[in-house]
Parts: sequence; structure tokens; C-alpha cells
Amino acid sequence: MTFEVTILGCGAAAPTTKHHPTSQVVNMHDKLFLIDCGEGSQMQMRKYKVKFQRINHIFISHLHGDHYLGLMGFISSMHLLGRKTKLYIYGPADLKLLIDMNLKASNTYLDYEIEFRATDSKVREMIYEDKSLEVYAFPLKHRVECCGFLFKEKQRKPKIEKELVERYKLRPSQIIQLKRGEDTVLSDGSILPFATACSPADAAKTYAYCSDTAYSETVIENVRNATLIYHESTFLNTEKERAKTTFHSTAEQAATVAKNANVQRLLLGHFSPRYTSDEEFRDEAKTIFENVELANEGLTFKI
Amino acid sequence: MTFEVTILGCGAAAPTTKHHPTSQVVNMHDKLFLIDCGEGSQMQMRKYKVKFQRINHIFISHLHGDHYLGLMGFISSMHLLGRKTKLYIYGPADLKLLIDMNLKASNTYLDYEIEFRATDSKVREMIYEDKSLEVYAFPLKHRVECCGFLFKEKQRKPKIEKELVERYKLRPSQIIQLKRGEDTVLSDGSILPFATACSPADAAKTYAYCSDTAYSETVIENVRNATLIYHESTFLNTEKERAKTTFHSTAEQAATVAKNANVQRLLLGHFSPRYTSDEEFRDEAKTIFENVELANEGLTFKI
Repeated sequence: MTFEVTILGCGAAAPTTKHHPTSQVVNMHDKLFLIDCGEGSQMQMRKYKVKFQRINHIFISHLHGDHYLGLMGFISSMHLLGRKTKLYIYGPADLKLLIDMNLKASNTYLDYEIEFRATDSKVREMIYEDKSLEVYAFPLKHRVECCGFLFKEKQRKPKIEKELVERYKLRPSQIIQLKRGEDTVLSDGSILPFATACSPADAAKTYAYCSDTAYSETVIENVRNATLIYHESTFLNTEKERAKTTFHSTAEQAATVAKNANVQRLLLGHFSPRYTSDEEFRDEAKTIFENVELANEGLTFKI
Repeated sequence: MTFEVTILGCGAAAPTTKHHPTSQVVNMHDKLFLIDCGEGSQMQMRKYKVKFQRINHIFISHLHGDHYLGLMGFISSMHLLGRKTKLYIYGPADLKLLIDMNLKASNTYLDYEIEFRATDSKVREMIYEDKSLEVYAFPLKHRVECCGFLFKEKQRKPKIEKELVERYKLRPSQIIQLKRGEDTVLSDGSILPFATACSPADAAKTYAYCSDTAYSETVIENVRNATLIYHESTFLNTEKERAKTTFHSTAEQAATVAKNANVQRLLLGHFSPRYTSDEEFRDEAKTIFENVELANEGLTFKI
């Protein structure tokens, strides 16, 4: 089953010729979820062939321009392209005011409904759920109200060996019994043990998005044991003081979060353009945590 | 002296891989003026090496997203890049509310001042003047309040032949006299006629920006005798009815404006992506008016 994230933009603040402002698409079993939507995100979606209308849920972490200024254009384009399906947007309460004001100013009446849910940057809460996924918003530590997002796959049931279903002509009730972890009695009276019939499903995976944020123990608690975390590393350790005053992180701090939270892999992004090469972020993080990858526009990371 | 316009975007409504939303930069003697600022305009400026901080005046025609959604990002980037110089923005009154609301939401205090002047889409009025240029806003005919902009070079004074200044050792007062169009008396008592000493300056040039608009007689009056007009041609004549209901123009209508206003050259833009080739717009316009050019991203047109 697909569970992956595609980077549309991973630069910090002002766009450069090297990086676009923040945006990424999580693909969970072919449902698409957009996280943040910096200016130009819709052009990036076109470039990387992300299907606009397959996105039904948009999560905005905070109201700094590089994380939301592409949202109105995207909302407008979906309308112009004939969208009728409801769109769910999750973000700070003021975002709703901004959307309404822009629609009013342009005298636009959307052909689809927007359902807005205000996030609360003070608590962890589940904001979305379907049969295979839960999404949580959790507090980040930034200059304005800011939430991270945790995409938590639900644990799937054990898989039955198909060959056994046919060999023993298992009835649906027996299959359900086995998937519950119980043994079942076959038609000849013998017992088919659960452990023989089933192999465990893959462990449920989680993806955590942490941008923008200063180093925070709360973040560590919220992303504990994640399969993959995207953690901002706007700066290197040489700018540690600047990271502190601007409520951003260094690559070393991002790696410390990854290490202390016992995550499997760390994906760095939100790179300040002041450095010559993004590789400097990886080098710094690797001194703390081994499994480090660098975000870049158009790259897809399996979770 | 430089007087030219560079196209940053000339597509209609939703951005495509072919065209960016509307934005263009007028260069008048190395002062830069931005007209409209669709999403991604700042990235286009970077791509075409337009110096952000040389722009002190921004003119927004109307509040449809494809004409203004790049403005907040541009305002923000100029701040992040250290701007201190006052920025003048001209546009519909609601634009000021949107700017203020975005700045408040992101808790941003700009290091430079914005002076906003609301345009009035009901009248023609001069909204900017310096020693070599006047800019007028004038009514366009669109679904929302919308202004065109006329960049009118001031008529320069006649040029004195330098060689004559040296030969007759002309004093500054005599030069001023000649430039006023009067003859002057030389030191030997003879008369140096104005017509001998001076050659006329080039005729003052004008550039008119007309987007978005339905065909309008008012527009014709406002752009009369312009050197170059940019007129939207969202549609071809096959979509004439659609052009009418959406308050846009066809290429034929744009050409009719150019012809009836006796302008020198017509620049078409705001192309709907429904057509195979932009050349179709030129072909249609040329049946009415000869001097037609097609806007395209990165192209600069001398005025």
C-alpha cells in the first residue's frame, strides 16, 4: 500500500531560484493530503503531476506567508477547473477570515463547499480519521501559533495465507475468527491455529511534519517512534543564536529531536538560502543521527 | 532613454505550465514600476533578473486572484531582504484591508512603510508623477472594479547641438532661452535662431495597460494615440459570447480597440489555455490591425 510524501517546496521564507516555499503532498493509499501551501504550490503540483482534484484535505501549519500564500490561488484554480467536491481545510482560525475576505474581494462564489476546522496549537488532537489513517495536530514552538501534523496509519489486521483459504475451504466467519487472532475448527474437526494461517501485517507507519519550530521537548513526545519525520532545519549550528531568536531549528537540533524521539528516519527541510550547499545540513545532522535525508523539490520519500 | 515593458506572466485565471498569472514590469529610465502581481511573480522576477528593491511603485488593476495573489509574498520578501524604502501601492480599496489582515495574521511588522492609494474605477485620474512620467488610472469594464494604467512620458525639451554650444560659447541663460524655443543674440550681435540650434526631442511615448476588460469605448478614449497598448485577449471570436458574459475580450475586439484608438502597436495577453497556440490570437487580431505582438514570459517590448 502506498504511504509516501512528495516535496513541492522546502525553502525558508523568501523563495529563491533554488527552493520553493513550503508545501508537500502525503499520498496515503492514493488519497492525497496537502501540508502547507506556500506561494506557487499549485505550479509545483502541475510540474510534478499531482492531481489537484484528488486533494480533499489541506493542513496549514501557521500563517507565515511561506506556508500559506499559495492557498487562495489553489482554492481559486480548483473552482475554475470545475471542482464540486467539498474541501476540508485545517489551520489557524485567522486563515478562515483571510479566505473569506479574499473570496469577497474577488466577488467569487465557489462551486464547492469549504469546511474549515480551526487547529489549536496548545494541545494534541485528532483532526482527521478514516478507515486506514488518523491525523493529529500537535503544538510546535514558533513565533506565531503553529501546529505540526502526525499521519498515523492504523494497524492493519494479520494477513491470511490465500492458499490455506482454498485448501481448507474456509468460510468467511472462519476468516474473521482467524484475523481476530483466534484458532478455528476445520470441517474435519481438526484445529487450524491462528499462527499457522496468518502472517502479521506490516507494522503501522507514521509520518510527522514539524515546521516551523524551535527545538522542543513537546515535539519529541509527539513524534516518538515515528517511521519518518520531516523536521525543519533552517540554520546550521553556527547560527544557533539566530535559530533561537527566530524560533527555528538547526540541523543538529533536528537530529537531536530524531534521536531522542527514537524515530527511524529524519527528513530535513526549510533550508535558509544563506548556505552554499544543502549537504551542510546533512553533514551536521549526521554527527547526531545516522538516517538523514534532504528534502528537495520533486522528491518522493516512502514512509 | 529606456522605456520598455517586460512580461512576467500573461496567462488567464488559473496558472498553467505554459503561462504564469498576470504581472509586468515597466522600466522608465531605470525606474521600475510593477503592474499587477499574480501568484509567483516574485519567482518570475528572480528568473528574469528584475531587481526587487528597484521597484517602488506597484499598480494593481483589480482583485481577481490572478492579478494580485503574488503581492503579499513580494511585500514579505522585500521585508526579509532588508528593504527600508517606502513602497507605494495603487489599487482597489479592499486591497489595503487584505494587506493589513495578512500582516496582522503573520504578526509581521515591516521595516519599510507602505503608502497605499485607492484607485477609483469610475474616473480617469493621474495617480503618479515625476519629472519624466505621469501615470493615470482609467476605467476598464470588468466583473469587479478594475482600472487600466496609462504610462505617459512627458514631452522632453528640444536638444541643442553640442557643437554649437562650444562654437558660440553659449551661456546657460542662452541655452535655456533656446530650449524654450526662442532665438538668442550672440556676443557679436548676430542672432542664432532656435531652429538652427535645436533639433526636436523624440515625441513623448505612452504605454497603456488594459487588463482585464470587455470591449469598451471608454477604453478607446483613454488609450487614444498610445505608442503601445497591452490589451487582454482572453478568447478568440469563436467564444465571443463567453467573452461578453465574463467581461473579457476576444483578439478581434482588442484589435478593434487598437485600430479605433489609432495606437501604434498592440500587445496581446491574458490568453485562455483552451487554445492550441497563442498564434491564433495574433492571426485573428491581424485581420483588423496590422502591428500585433504576442506577450510571453520573459519578453521585453520597447515602447
